[in-house]
Amino acid sequence: MKKTITETRKYRLDMNDKILNSGFKEFNKFFALDNKAYIGGALPAKTKELMGLAASMVLRCNDCIFYHVDRSVTEGASKEELYETFNVALIVGGSIVIPHLRYAFDVMEDIFKEDDKNNK
Amino acid sequence: MKKTITETRKYRLDMNDKILNSGFKEFNKFFALDNKAYIGGALPAKTKELMGLAASMVLRCNDCIFYHVDRSVTEGASKEELYETFNVALIVGGSIVIPHLRYAFDVMEDIFKEDDKNNK
Amino acid sequence: MKKTITETRKYRLDMNDKILNSGFKEFNKFFALDNKAYIGGALPAKTKELMGLAASMVLRCNDCIFYHVDRSVTEGASKEELYETFNVALIVGGSIVIPHLRYAFDVMEDIFKEDDKNNK
Amino acid sequence: MKKTITETRKYRLDMNDKILNSGFKEFNKFFALDNKAYIGGALPAKTKELMGLAASMVLRCNDCIFYHVDRSVTEGASKEELYETFNVALIVGGSIVIPHLRYAFDVMEDIFKEDDKNNK
Amino acid sequence: MKKTITETRKYRLDMNDKILNSGFKEFNKFFALDNKAYIGGALPAKTKELMGLAASMVLRCNDCIFYHVDRSVTEGASKEELYETFNVALIVGGSIVIPHLRYAFDVMEDIFKEDDKNNK
Amino acid sequence: MKKTITETRKYRLDMNDKILNSGFKEFNKFFALDNKAYIGGALPAKTKELMGLAASMVLRCNDCIFYHVDRSVTEGASKEELYETFNVALIVGGSIVIPHLRYAFDVMEDIFKEDDKNNK
Repeated sequence: MKKTITETRKYRLDMNDKILNSGFKEFNKFFALDNKAYIGGALPAKTKELMGLAASMVLRCNDCIFYHVDRSVTEGASKEELYETFNVALIVGGSIVIPHLRYAFDVMEDIFKEDDKNNK
Repeated sequence: MKKTITETRKYRLDMNDKILNSGFKEFNKFFALDNKAYIGGALPAKTKELMGLAASMVLRCNDCIFYHVDRSVTEGASKEELYETFNVALIVGGSIVIPHLRYAFDVMEDIFKEDDKNNK
Repeated sequence: MKKTITETRKYRLDMNDKILNSGFKEFNKFFALDNKAYIGGALPAKTKELMGLAASMVLRCNDCIFYHVDRSVTEGASKEELYETFNVALIVGGSIVIPHLRYAFDVMEDIFKEDDKNNK
Repeated sequence: MKKTITETRKYRLDMNDKILNSGFKEFNKFFALDNKAYIGGALPAKTKELMGLAASMVLRCNDCIFYHVDRSVTEGASKEELYETFNVALIVGGSIVIPHLRYAFDVMEDIFKEDDKNNK
Repeated sequence: MKKTITETRKYRLDMNDKILNSGFKEFNKFFALDNKAYIGGALPAKTKELMGLAASMVLRCNDCIFYHVDRSVTEGASKEELYETFNVALIVGGSIVIPHLRYAFDVMEDIFKEDDKNNK
Repeated sequence: MKKTITETRKYRLDMNDKILNSGFKEFNKFFALDNKAYIGGALPAKTKELMGLAASMVLRCNDCIFYHVDRSVTEGASKEELYETFNVALIVGGSIVIPHLRYAFDVMEDIFKEDDKNNK
């Protein structure tokens, strides 16, 4: 039984809340740096999110792949741009990336479907 | 005694020649796919090279870092764009990336110096 | 509730179909190279599958472990040959491989059980 | 539906039993070395378990994280000591560790809750 | 020709200076968080440095190994404590860690020799 | 100035001697298990060495690559068998493996040249 994209987003936010409210302030500082790294500057936010996606795929982290596919689409990435990013990751990281390519594909389709529904 | 950028480029090309002339054709096919992944399409070549650079930094591969810094600069990447790419890689990959950040910095400076000389 | 081996095989094939029918042809080329790498040549197919299994275990990829255990058994690998392969991977990759050894064991037993049933 | 800590512990023990009773004795020898590495010596057992936890987090292995959080708490690690260990792992390994930080947090809370119940 | 420990320390500091003076302030913020993670708190500084060493060994980063062996000795780690840390890393990370164990050993001996000289 | 194969072998043996004579006996036990994993059993020694080579390439460890190419040739591996092993590793691990493929090629050629000389 696949987790829906709404459930995946919610678990992430709930757990982040616990971490950021633990009272251990170093976590908050790192999370702030992390967020800031993807804000548009010399490079636009979309490029940075796709870059984060490629890095997440070669490091084979599904939760990170989910997050960056989600954010890339929000920043306006097209299906073709996602395919080219998936392909760079596949070539850099090899066949060991394939299970994560399957996951990225699955997530991408769900997010575009959700977008279609919202735009009706 | 640091290897010059000319020496690093030459060793890479010489060894690739040996591999591509070994008679084992599967190597040639993979190398062809690898080259093609960075050609401009929906995403421009510069973006793909910076993406390859971020992936190389989080996977901590100096030879790959050298190659993608070199190619990114050829495709017109600015110092600021490289810094932002380095930073995404540093945040994704953590302090374990720092030795590779030092290497990337070193290479970037050498390549920009060489460019300055050539443009005089 | 553990996924059955039939379900695991099916999800893999279904998602691969989506990827290979996406219209982005670079994926098809890489998948073709991937398949070809395991065809018998100077080394027999069984050896290559066991090699792919060892690589998958040290890289800690359960989906890849499933696939190569499945293929190794099809190519005639015995339990003892799988144990020796598991052990090379365990020694190369250390205790971090143990959760994947547990998974590999679990999969191996299910596949041999299925074989026994089919051979009755 | 999250696996309870009792279920996670049981699956681990059951599968280890199968491995250790497979008749392939090299597995038993490695498992014995593994256990011995965490016994108190010049460094106390708690320190070694926290060290194993940090290593498991940067290598991003949830089963290993579960085990070492569980063992660290048994050896007397406090919440604050776990936070500092999580933080070293987060800084060394970067944002790619965050999904595993979420898991470690989740597990830690469940284990401390269980302890509270047992101490009533 | 092996780099001396003085040369290794100097290259690290020189390159860090360049990075921290590049004007790109995100690097400075991450480096500050990195330094702070190893300051004594609930866990003493020595424990955190040994933890950083174990993490560096399983991630197989020689520059990081150098730094944490150096810092651990400064914080008072004994040879026996270093051996036990090396061993946790070797067991967690497997034989792939052995080349880094050789490096760690080499560095440890050089640093203890230097200490002996300074204490005469 | 490239290290000769004789120098590489010697540094490895010298440092292993130091480790195995340190008095910390857990190192000796792990090294013994490591050696035993490659002894011929259900699978021949050559197959196990090639398996260790593939694992070393995807984990991108040059010292380990050197050792297993050297041992594979001693166990009778042909150039073609090495090429097929390199190719499995390249496909599994992707372009990030290419610098290690260059190294493996370089080492393989040196070792076969040395063999030719010895056989004259």
